Amino acid sequence: MFFHVQKLINEIVPDEPDPAAANALQEGLGGQFGEMRTMMQYLFQSFNFRGKAKPYLDLIQGVGIEEISHVELIATTINRLVDGSPRYQGKAMGDGDGGTPLEIALDGHGKSNIHHWLVASQGAMPVDAAGNPWSGSYVYNSGNLSLDLLYNLMLESTGRLQKCRLYEMTRNKTARSTISYLIVRDHAHENVFAKALESLGVNWNKLLPIPNFDATKFPEVKQLMDKGLHNQQYHWRLDGSEMAKIIKGQSPSTTSEHNGGTLQVPENAPVGAPISMGAERPEEFAPGLSRDIEAMAEMVVQASRKVN
Amino acid sequence: MFFHVQKLINEIVPDEPDPAAANALQEGLGGQFGEMRTMMQYLFQSFNFRGKAKPYLDLIQGVGIEEISHVELIATTINRLVDGSPRYQGKAMGDGDGGTPLEIALDGHGKSNIHHWLVASQGAMPVDAAGNPWSGSYVYNSGNLSLDLLYNLMLESTGRLQKCRLYEMTRNKTARSTISYLIVRDHAHENVFAKALESLGVNWNKLLPIPNFDATKFPEVKQLMDKGLHNQQYHWRLDGSEMAKIIKGQSPSTTSEHNGGTLQVPENAPVGAPISMGAERPEEFAPGLSRDIEAMAEMVVQASRKVN
Amino acid sequence: MFFHVQKLINEIVPDEPDPAAANALQEGLGGQFGEMRTMMQYLFQSFNFRGKAKPYLDLIQGVGIEEISHVELIATTINRLVDGSPRYQGKAMGDGDGGTPLEIALDGHGKSNIHHWLVASQGAMPVDAAGNPWSGSYVYNSGNLSLDLLYNLMLESTGRLQKCRLYEMTRNKTARSTISYLIVRDHAHENVFAKALESLGVNWNKLLPIPNFDATKFPEVKQLMDKGLHNQQYHWRLDGSEMAKIIKGQSPSTTSEHNGGTLQVPENAPVGAPISMGAERPEEFAPGLSRDIEAMAEMVVQASRKVN
Amino acid sequence: MFFHVQKLINEIVPDEPDPAAANALQEGLGGQFGEMRTMMQYLFQSFNFRGKAKPYLDLIQGVGIEEISHVELIATTINRLVDGSPRYQGKAMGDGDGGTPLEIALDGHGKSNIHHWLVASQGAMPVDAAGNPWSGSYVYNSGNLSLDLLYNLMLESTGRLQKCRLYEMTRNKTARSTISYLIVRDHAHENVFAKALESLGVNWNKLLPIPNFDATKFPEVKQLMDKGLHNQQYHWRLDGSEMAKIIKGQSPSTTSEHNGGTLQVPENAPVGAPISMGAERPEEFAPGLSRDIEAMAEMVVQASRKVN
Amino acid sequence: MFFHVQKLINEIVPDEPDPAAANALQEGLGGQFGEMRTMMQYLFQSFNFRGKAKPYLDLIQGVGIEEISHVELIATTINRLVDGSPRYQGKAMGDGDGGTPLEIALDGHGKSNIHHWLVASQGAMPVDAAGNPWSGSYVYNSGNLSLDLLYNLMLESTGRLQKCRLYEMTRNKTARSTISYLIVRDHAHENVFAKALESLGVNWNKLLPIPNFDATKFPEVKQLMDKGLHNQQYHWRLDGSEMAKIIKGQSPSTTSEHNGGTLQVPENAPVGAPISMGAERPEEFAPGLSRDIEAMAEMVVQASRKVN
Amino acid sequence: MFFHVQKLINEIVPDEPDPAAANALQEGLGGQFGEMRTMMQYLFQSFNFRGKAKPYLDLIQGVGIEEISHVELIATTINRLVDGSPRYQGKAMGDGDGGTPLEIALDGHGKSNIHHWLVASQGAMPVDAAGNPWSGSYVYNSGNLSLDLLYNLMLESTGRLQKCRLYEMTRNKTARSTISYLIVRDHAHENVFAKALESLGVNWNKLLPIPNFDATKFPEVKQLMDKGLHNQQYHWRLDGSEMAKIIKGQSPSTTSEHNGGTLQVPENAPVGAPISMGAERPEEFAPGLSRDIEAMAEMVVQASRKVN
Repeated sequence: MFFHVQKLINEIVPDEPDPAAANALQEGLGGQFGEMRTMMQYLFQSFNFRGKAKPYLDLIQGVGIEEISHVELIATTINRLVDGSPRYQGKAMGDGDGGTPLEIALDGHGKSNIHHWLVASQGAMPVDAAGNPWSGSYVYNSGNLSLDLLYNLMLESTGRLQKCRLYEMTRNKTARSTISYLIVRDHAHENVFAKALESLGVNWNKLLPIPNFDATKFPEVKQLMDKGLHNQQYHWRLDGSEMAKIIKGQSPSTTSEHNGGTLQVPENAPVGAPISMGAERPEEFAPGLSRDIEAMAEMVVQASRKVN
Repeated sequence: MFFHVQKLINEIVPDEPDPAAANALQEGLGGQFGEMRTMMQYLFQSFNFRGKAKPYLDLIQGVGIEEISHVELIATTINRLVDGSPRYQGKAMGDGDGGTPLEIALDGHGKSNIHHWLVASQGAMPVDAAGNPWSGSYVYNSGNLSLDLLYNLMLESTGRLQKCRLYEMTRNKTARSTISYLIVRDHAHENVFAKALESLGVNWNKLLPIPNFDATKFPEVKQLMDKGLHNQQYHWRLDGSEMAKIIKGQSPSTTSEHNGGTLQVPENAPVGAPISMGAERPEEFAPGLSRDIEAMAEMVVQASRKVN
Repeated sequence: MFFHVQKLINEIVPDEPDPAAANALQEGLGGQFGEMRTMMQYLFQSFNFRGKAKPYLDLIQGVGIEEISHVELIATTINRLVDGSPRYQGKAMGDGDGGTPLEIALDGHGKSNIHHWLVASQGAMPVDAAGNPWSGSYVYNSGNLSLDLLYNLMLESTGRLQKCRLYEMTRNKTARSTISYLIVRDHAHENVFAKALESLGVNWNKLLPIPNFDATKFPEVKQLMDKGLHNQQYHWRLDGSEMAKIIKGQSPSTTSEHNGGTLQVPENAPVGAPISMGAERPEEFAPGLSRDIEAMAEMVVQASRKVN
Repeated sequence: MFFHVQKLINEIVPDEPDPAAANALQEGLGGQFGEMRTMMQYLFQSFNFRGKAKPYLDLIQGVGIEEISHVELIATTINRLVDGSPRYQGKAMGDGDGGTPLEIALDGHGKSNIHHWLVASQGAMPVDAAGNPWSGSYVYNSGNLSLDLLYNLMLESTGRLQKCRLYEMTRNKTARSTISYLIVRDHAHENVFAKALESLGVNWNKLLPIPNFDATKFPEVKQLMDKGLHNQQYHWRLDGSEMAKIIKGQSPSTTSEHNGGTLQVPENAPVGAPISMGAERPEEFAPGLSRDIEAMAEMVVQASRKVN
Repeated sequence: MFFHVQKLINEIVPDEPDPAAANALQEGLGGQFGEMRTMMQYLFQSFNFRGKAKPYLDLIQGVGIEEISHVELIATTINRLVDGSPRYQGKAMGDGDGGTPLEIALDGHGKSNIHHWLVASQGAMPVDAAGNPWSGSYVYNSGNLSLDLLYNLMLESTGRLQKCRLYEMTRNKTARSTISYLIVRDHAHENVFAKALESLGVNWNKLLPIPNFDATKFPEVKQLMDKGLHNQQYHWRLDGSEMAKIIKGQSPSTTSEHNGGTLQVPENAPVGAPISMGAERPEEFAPGLSRDIEAMAEMVVQASRKVN
Repeated sequence: MFFHVQKLINEIVPDEPDPAAANALQEGLGGQFGEMRTMMQYLFQSFNFRGKAKPYLDLIQGVGIEEISHVELIATTINRLVDGSPRYQGKAMGDGDGGTPLEIALDGHGKSNIHHWLVASQGAMPVDAAGNPWSGSYVYNSGNLSLDLLYNLMLESTGRLQKCRLYEMTRNKTARSTISYLIVRDHAHENVFAKALESLGVNWNKLLPIPNFDATKFPEVKQLMDKGLHNQQYHWRLDGSEMAKIIKGQSPSTTSEHNGGTLQVPENAPVGAPISMGAERPEEFAPGLSRDIEAMAEMVVQASRKVN
């Protein structure tokens, strides 16, 4: 059973809208190695888990739960980046002078996805940066524990690789704040899956993390690594977890002093950051309630307030 | 941010394995009108929500959170139905006498999916009953509140329709316990989305619920409706919800006395049912740890127990 | 602009329901070389036609219009084959004794598609015999007239080849009546596209038709060929057509006396066969109107009758 | 059985070619909520129709037939918009000076689809604005009449919503003439499906049309609404129709005086607008007949003229 | 540049046709972890290879070339298994007595794919065991050498896992001869990719091979392992290869004495087994040449023989 | 069994990187009518070949083997075109001044595919120019020899048509060198499949080649045709071939003197052009070995050199 708190797992730094960055971030949301995939893969692996190795189940499922919050974070980030983009001026639609707000959807400045305006109302979509819809065929669940862990390690490494490339593609602060957070969390997930494989005998020596470079070159990443976020894995369970039995001790990322450190399962979940409501977009007819209907809805809510 | 309790939202009644029923249930998991789709659709609609009508956001998101638990429930049910199916006798693999456990995968008794054995290790998969992988193109999020509510009502009605057909397709008790629960919950979701449209002015008269028949003909469904489960909608939020402002009063399903009643947002989440660990399946190499490796893993866990 | 007459282009012979034959026929409806594809390919080729060779446009478009009626014919045939299949006895649903009508959907007798019952309410679907949905990527329209004609000839030959294989797969008379009709019409379409290529210089010698055999071995096919149906191509236009300028004279199918003959554009469209309304299927909730609602609808229609 | 008149259902206003607008319009042709989908959905619903409610069958099928003409209209519009775009000057191909005609296909000015030049010979394709091919999985046909009508209402509303967004994206008159026509026709289709649901008991109050705004702000739309085109639904049948029994009386779109009015089934089909032949495009090798072959084809046609 | 010898990389043992086994084997050909995928993945990785680590390039490409021969082997095996299945008796088609040869295509005995008869003429297809067509999205090529090697190791392990499950699904000797060969070759490929990762520092300890069991329980596998086939990797290059610089020494599969051993790059390619020509299938119209045409073709070939 | 020589089948002329041209060329690699498709189609046709017409088998398979080398050529060409594009200056990543190398991935100058940078590390991918992944459903193999040859002729003609359009889209010399080579080879393949159909009786008269124009207008194409490359078809077999029995005599392309000539099966395979190793791309983390790991790998290779 799943529960929710209406907060984000990390803060989104405000900046200008940027539809090209929004589109690039779609890879991290709906791409083959994005958050929807990690979320679904780990949830299926835990729902289908076999055998008595409960700490491994709790690890895979714990990371899976976190990924739902990543989906929430990156979807909200994309929404912010495409919302009103790039220089929305509140003009009435179809007024015929000086350009209509949606003309941006057809122009060629920066690689973007016309569906962001035409279909998704300036919101996030379950597709990748090239527009391919997310597919259930992405989910890998062999049932063999060694293989599933090996795949998960590779999956997180590829996620981190693509996010490092995304970091270099844009300077937008909204985009970079979420990208940097995910680089560090993917690093943490690499660490925990690699650690689980260590418990099955593998010695990674100097191979990890992948990509194998000093990520503190990215200032926003450095800030989060300085807090040790790449070495912590909270379990997201309201009823406790056995994950900590295998996630502890020396990090398997031993390339440099900085990447090393000690893995931890913190006692408390992060506090979270507030989510602001998205603004209305009349040119998208979103939410598009006419005044009559809005009044009707408002009346119902007010009546409810009196009673409650 | 999302949290988890390792319990099922409803109990799964034990019965014989039944791969054909398992495959049919895949429609309810990974089909175009299944639980993965409702879950993703409502989550995207809430992440991209615009305007100040917060009770509507809390409603859509609240149902969305519940759907993750439905995915967990139906995935686990499929796993139980295909696990060891149909009459696993613990034989060693490849022994050459009397049949190997996996020969069932190729036989033609009952419509089933060979991938359940060959790919998914006798577990659930993100595909429909015809084997099509789940697709991100299923997710509908127009941004227009009236339209999204209308679609959601249609979606839940189609889900309930297909589950009523599923009920008639099988007599397996494991399958029927989950199917019946989902028939009643889809009914509840029809009710809350129809109620939200009522607050925007629509009068449904005698149209609902769809399909429009006396569902108490199905005994397991009757039992749950007697408890009023089709008129309740918990919010699944740890930080409260404004959903109750619109979900209250007369049910929009007014066809017969039985279907009517009063909508409620209960104060407490359901307690949930325990989940048992899936048994090992050596013929699937799942989890497939050799004795050496299992011993190594056990050692790590034991060491951890001592320390903790 | 398109118009309709509520009749079938050929009569459907009644026989027992047969879900395996219904599923096989889906290849002819939604398969890569089925009627939806020929219809869409020829319509796109005619909407995008370039140059002044109007008789060629009228030919391609004329065949395209006929294909819509083929889609109607084969969809109706599939509906009849799966409807109530295989031995529906009008039992109340969920009564628990002697089997429920939908249990057929899960059994393994004959290759069938569970979606026929679970999704499509015992009706036809836009998918092929292996369950793959029809795809827009099937449509071929190079814009080069020689190539488009060559592709169309190959497409009709493949359609005829697959329908000859379908004929051998089933003895159901409902299925064979439509299959045989389509074998002969695909032959006619082979002839007209080959004839158009003859007008561009090609001499086919003994190559056609493909497959190159005596199709009169199939009695239902013989009956239609005896009427010359493989040598006629009506234009389906209410405002005349220039197709006849190239479709006339010796058939390009010269393998045997029987296959030869003279191509004709008849002056009158076929009369068509009546379509019966599909029976209600309560176990599918189709059409699923409750008595209250049915009464309401009936009242509206009656009121209308009085007025008119 | 289907028939054709070689005319367009509405006139296309000439303007400059505009490949970005052409690509945007592809959503209305091959998109998930475009004309190919409405056409196929209504045709399948009518081919699979169950029960005796014939006026409802005639309604769904009547709208379906109209949609084939919409496919013809929008495909031709896209063809005109991409044809020779954006400023084709009749240069010989590959001459190496001043640019080749097809270099436009690779440039980045305006969001366009390279396949329009590389694959489709400057013509329309069965894909959406993001390049996804049309899929048979779009077609919805539950067999339950209430649900099918509800879905159809939602489908037309989404179609109208997307076309209103398309209107705001471009000022090209060719594009806007077809977009505006489809906005008004989708409105009419919303009206007739909502009316059918009214006959089953629903009272829509102020919810319709969706999106709920004064569409006469768009001048081309106003012109068509002034003619009452949003309140008329012709049946497109050569053998009569019972549609009028439910389509009559007060429009369900009652938001403002303008949107209201009385629904009608006109006695006569529209006259239609002439279609001009597409010009040759030598740089696309379309139609690409060499002089020798063209002469041969011409000779055949001439010979035919003499005989006829 | 690629070259060919018309021989199979391993012998196919003759046995009865078996369409269910043929369909299961499709997973190994066109499945997500089948031979088409390994072939394409390694070829793309080698065509896009970066950096100066030439022995690693030669390794990846060398395995890729071998995979083309695996595609040839498994396609031919499927062809043999479905050819004439299950008990073809040479009857004339459509003779109406005692059953037609193609009726097998619709029956429900054993899970099979109707496309094997209807589309592929009793031949192999580029699809998986559930009928999904092979997709380019399967190919993984991150450009990061560590990641690509890790993925390749996981890919081969999953291939071997699925083939071990396939072995248990059928007792057909034709199927098992090819399955067993591929189990051993996937083992070899696990070994070489694991060895390459060893050269980058990883110590696998007891983890490999995956699945981690004594494969000599399968007699046909034992025979091939006794010959050391799991420890050899030929390079398939006519111009030499640097692969041997990293592929040598102790096998990384150290679970038991049997699995261990020493890796080798043999000096000579295998001799190969002869391929017999497929028999004609008149009921499939394959090759379907009429007597006239066959005579014509034969004449041309004879004429050629005289001249040469 | 397949073998390899590490050379290209034709030389790639160096020029500036050009990501838009690279993306356009993807159609020729992973498009519906590209080299992956011809390769797979001919290989499947030859693996499934039926009957005794061995020269036809050897022809289809021979062309199929050549297509693997075409895949290699075009993949390498795309790699060169996107590599370091468009003005890579070797800057350290994330340094924050003057632009990062990967910012090019988001800009809108020229139609390109963001996946080239984000996923494929500036390499080729198995997708088409609109980003659709290659699909197994492209492969056509009817088993009927006449049909397969007819399809192959159409396929090569469409390939040549699209490549002629590609030629006109770009002036980049790297792109044009490979495009021109493929125009000429597709012409040769048109010739050989048309010749095979001639041996079955067809007389093509003036129809071929398609597109039917003087290709020597393209200077790079002229150069290759002057060498007769459009009339030669090597067999790529190490064990001989019977292809020459049908491939000889007058070319079926008889439009002009230039296109005609005599078909030949040369005795010797082409010599091939050297392949240079791809440069490292640190901004892509490709190959991304850290110094420690690189040293380790180097050590292993050196040790090997000493021993060998």
